Amino acid sequence: MDAIHVGILGFGTVGTGTAQILLENKDLILQRLGVPVCLAKVADRDLERKRNYPLPDGVFTTRVEDVLEDPSIHIVVELIGGLEPALSFIRRAIAGGKHVVTANKALLAHAGAQLFGEAAARGVEIGFEASVGGGIPIIRALKEGFAANQIQSIYSIINGTGNYILSRMTNEGRKFADVLKEAQEKGYAEKDPTLDVEGIDSAHKIAILASLAFGVTVPLESVYTEGITHIDPLDIQFAREFGFKIKLLAIAKNHGDQIEVRVHPTMLPSESPIAKVDGVFNAIQVEGDWVGKNMFIGRGAGALPTGSAVVGDIVDISRSLLKRACGRVSPLSTLPRYVRPARVKAMESISSEFYLRCSALDKPGVMAKISGVLGRHGISIASVIQKGRHEERAVPVVFVTHSAREQDVRDALGEIDRLEVVTEKTMLVRLESSV
Amino acid sequence: MDAIHVGILGFGTVGTGTAQILLENKDLILQRLGVPVCLAKVADRDLERKRNYPLPDGVFTTRVEDVLEDPSIHIVVELIGGLEPALSFIRRAIAGGKHVVTANKALLAHAGAQLFGEAAARGVEIGFEASVGGGIPIIRALKEGFAANQIQSIYSIINGTGNYILSRMTNEGRKFADVLKEAQEKGYAEKDPTLDVEGIDSAHKIAILASLAFGVTVPLESVYTEGITHIDPLDIQFAREFGFKIKLLAIAKNHGDQIEVRVHPTMLPSESPIAKVDGVFNAIQVEGDWVGKNMFIGRGAGALPTGSAVVGDIVDISRSLLKRACGRVSPLSTLPRYVRPARVKAMESISSEFYLRCSALDKPGVMAKISGVLGRHGISIASVIQKGRHEERAVPVVFVTHSAREQDVRDALGEIDRLEVVTEKTMLVRLESSV
Repeated sequence: MDAIHVGILGFGTVGTGTAQILLENKDLILQRLGVPVCLAKVADRDLERKRNYPLPDGVFTTRVEDVLEDPSIHIVVELIGGLEPALSFIRRAIAGGKHVVTANKALLAHAGAQLFGEAAARGVEIGFEASVGGGIPIIRALKEGFAANQIQSIYSIINGTGNYILSRMTNEGRKFADVLKEAQEKGYAEKDPTLDVEGIDSAHKIAILASLAFGVTVPLESVYTEGITHIDPLDIQFAREFGFKIKLLAIAKNHGDQIEVRVHPTMLPSESPIAKVDGVFNAIQVEGDWVGKNMFIGRGAGALPTGSAVVGDIVDISRSLLKRACGRVSPLSTLPRYVRPARVKAMESISSEFYLRCSALDKPGVMAKISGVLGRHGISIASVIQKGRHEERAVPVVFVTHSAREQDVRDALGEIDRLEVVTEKTMLVRLESSV
Repeated sequence: MDAIHVGILGFGTVGTGTAQILLENKDLILQRLGVPVCLAKVADRDLERKRNYPLPDGVFTTRVEDVLEDPSIHIVVELIGGLEPALSFIRRAIAGGKHVVTANKALLAHAGAQLFGEAAARGVEIGFEASVGGGIPIIRALKEGFAANQIQSIYSIINGTGNYILSRMTNEGRKFADVLKEAQEKGYAEKDPTLDVEGIDSAHKIAILASLAFGVTVPLESVYTEGITHIDPLDIQFAREFGFKIKLLAIAKNHGDQIEVRVHPTMLPSESPIAKVDGVFNAIQVEGDWVGKNMFIGRGAGALPTGSAVVGDIVDISRSLLKRACGRVSPLSTLPRYVRPARVKAMESISSEFYLRCSALDKPGVMAKISGVLGRHGISIASVIQKGRHEERAVPVVFVTHSAREQDVRDALGEIDRLEVVTEKTMLVRLESSV
C-alpha cells in the first residue's frame, strides 16, 4: 500500500479542521506511517457556506458518491452530524468495505451497536475518538490504557457550551438567559441550544463512555437527562455558601449487575479537581479498580481539537491497514460476544445527596413542618440555611441532605410543595460530596 | 493461539501488583482478547522478602532462566528496575523472540534507543506505558492519541515523592529535611531518596516523554537536572506572596530545530491547573499544535496504578500478537528511519523568568547596587519585595524578573554574590508564569 486515501463527508467546522491538519501535518503523519495520507475528496452539498480554509483543486465536491463510490478511498470521515443522512452514508461506506471515522455522538448513541455490528461483519474499523471530549484521548484510554481495569465510575463535564454558561453564571452572578444570549452572539452556543443546555449532548456522550467502560450497550432512553435551564443564580450562591459549585455532570457508575448513567446539574465540593474546570473545557474523571482516579482535561470542541482526534483515528486505522490488522481492538474494547445490554438503574432508585431550596412563608413552625416531612420519608438533614426575616413573606429555606433515595425525595417534595406555608415549587439539585 | 503466556521478572511492589491484576481480572482480560492471559512464572532471587500476595503453586521461581528460556512464554515483564541485570535480561528476552513490557524508566532513558533497535530487528514489541506517570496512559496518548499533532510543550510533575515533599513543605511551612524524614518513615520516600529528590527520576521520565513527543533520541546527560533539596520554606512563602507555588517540574519544549529538556524546581501561578496537583499525584500537561493543552492527572506510582499500566501493555501486545501485527506502532511513534538525535539547547542559553532571593545588609543604596547589576546584564525586573528593617543585619531582597537568559542571570548573580553588602549565595528559582 503506497498511500492511504481519505474522503471527508461534511465540510463544516470539524471538516475544515480535519482537512487543515491532514494537509499541514502531512510530513509528520508520513513519519509515523511510512506512507502518506492523501486527502482525496471532501464532499458537502453546501456550495455557499464561507470556509476559511482553501482545498487543493479537485478535492471539493458536492456529490457524496464521489467519496462513497471511489474505490481508491480507504477511509471515510463522517463529519455531517445528526442522524440522517449521516447514518445511511456510514452504512454505505461500511458496505463498500471502507473504514469509518466519525465525530457523531448522536448517531453513535442511537445506532452505535448496529454500526459496530455491520463494521465487524465487513471487517472494517470505526474510529470515534472525536465523538467525546474533543481532542482528549478518552476513548483510547478506556479501550486500551485502562484495559486491565474494571471501571468503577466516570464523572465528567463533556459539554463545553453548558460548562461555559454555568461558569459565567457562577463567576458573574448572572442569569441563565442573559449568559446564553451572549454565548449565542459570540458563537459559543448554537442558535438552537437545546442539545447543549438540556443535557442531551452530554447524554449521548456518557452513553458512549458507559458502553466502553462497562462493556455494555446503553439504550439512550435509559439515560436520565436534565439540563441547566432552570438553574437560578440564587442556587449558585447558596451552593457557594455550602462550599459547592454547580456543574452539568454526566455520571456513570458500576454496581456490578446494574449501572447508573445520568446527566444533571450537580453540586460538587468547590475544591474537587473537576469543579475547578471552567469555561469551554471538558474534564473526565475515570476511576478504575486498580488505576484509581485519573483525570483528563482539555478542549472538548472546536475545529482543531476535534480534528486532532479525527486525524488520530485516521493514523490509528492506517497503522492497522498497513499491518492488515483491522479489528485488532473491538469497538467497545470488550469483544462483541461478551457485550451485554446494560441494566440501567431507574433514576427513582438511585441514592445521592440533595440540595433542596424551599420557598416558605416566614412563620413559626415552618422549619419543623418541612423537616418533619423529610424525616417521615427517611431523609436525613446534613445542614440547613434559613436567611432573612420577612414576617408573612416567602424566604428561601435550604436543606442539604445525607444520601437519600431519589423516589423518597420526590415523594417528600410532593408533600412539602403542597404545604400551605410553601409558596413555590422546591428546587432540587443532586449533590456528590465525594467526587 | 489459545492463550498468552506471561513471565514476570521481579516480584517486588509492582511485580506483586501486576500478578494480582492478571489473576484477579483474568475474566475481564479474556473478554477483551478472546483468549486467556496466563501468568506462567514469576522470578525473583529474593526468597526472604515478605509479599502480601500469594502466587498459585508452581509460579514462583528463583531462576530467571525459567522465564527467559521457557519457549511457551510470549511476553516477559521486567520489573526489577535499575540498569543491570535488567538490561541483560531484556536483551536476552528480545533475542529469544519474546515481547517485553517494562516499567524501567532509568533503563529506557539510558538504553532505550538500543533496546528499541534490537526489538525492531527481532520483530518484537516493547511496552513501557508504566515507565512514566504510573497508571496515567500518557505514553499511549503521545504515540497514538496525539499522533496528528506536532507537540509544542510538556510541563509535568512526574515524581510523586518530590511532589509529596514539596506539597507538605508548602502546606505546613516545614523544612525539607523534616518532611523527608517523615516521608521515609511512612514509606513514601526511599531510604536513599537521591533519585527522587535530586530530580534524576524526573529526568529519566522527561527524556522518555520528549523522545516520544518530538520523535528524537534524547541523551540523558543533556537533560538539565536540579532537585528540591535546597528549597527553603522562606522561598515557598515568598512565592505565595507573589501568587506562585513551587513544584518540581519536568519540562520539554519544541523550538523546531532545537528542543529544551529540563528538570528543576519551578514557580508557577498558584491558580494554574498543574500547580493545584498536590501530594503523590502526577500531572502532565501536553500542548499540541492542533489539540491545544491537555492535562492528565493520576497516581504516578504504587503497585496497582503501575500494575494497571503494565497489564494494559500486556493486553495491547496480546491484541497485536493475535492479529500478527507486532510493530504496528513504532516504539517512539515516529518510524525509526525518521528519528533523529535531539539538538538539546544548553541550559545557559534558555530564557525564562526568575525568582531571585538575595541576602543583603539593610543599608542605604543596597537595592540600587543589586538592581544595577541586574540591569547591566540586561535583566529586567518585574517586581521586588524587601521586608523587615534590621540596620546592619542581612534581610532578604526578592526580585522577580521578566524573561532573561540563564547565562545572563548566572553572570549577574556571580557579581551580586561578590558585593560586600550581600551576605549569602543568592537563591534562584526559575519561574513559568504562563503555564
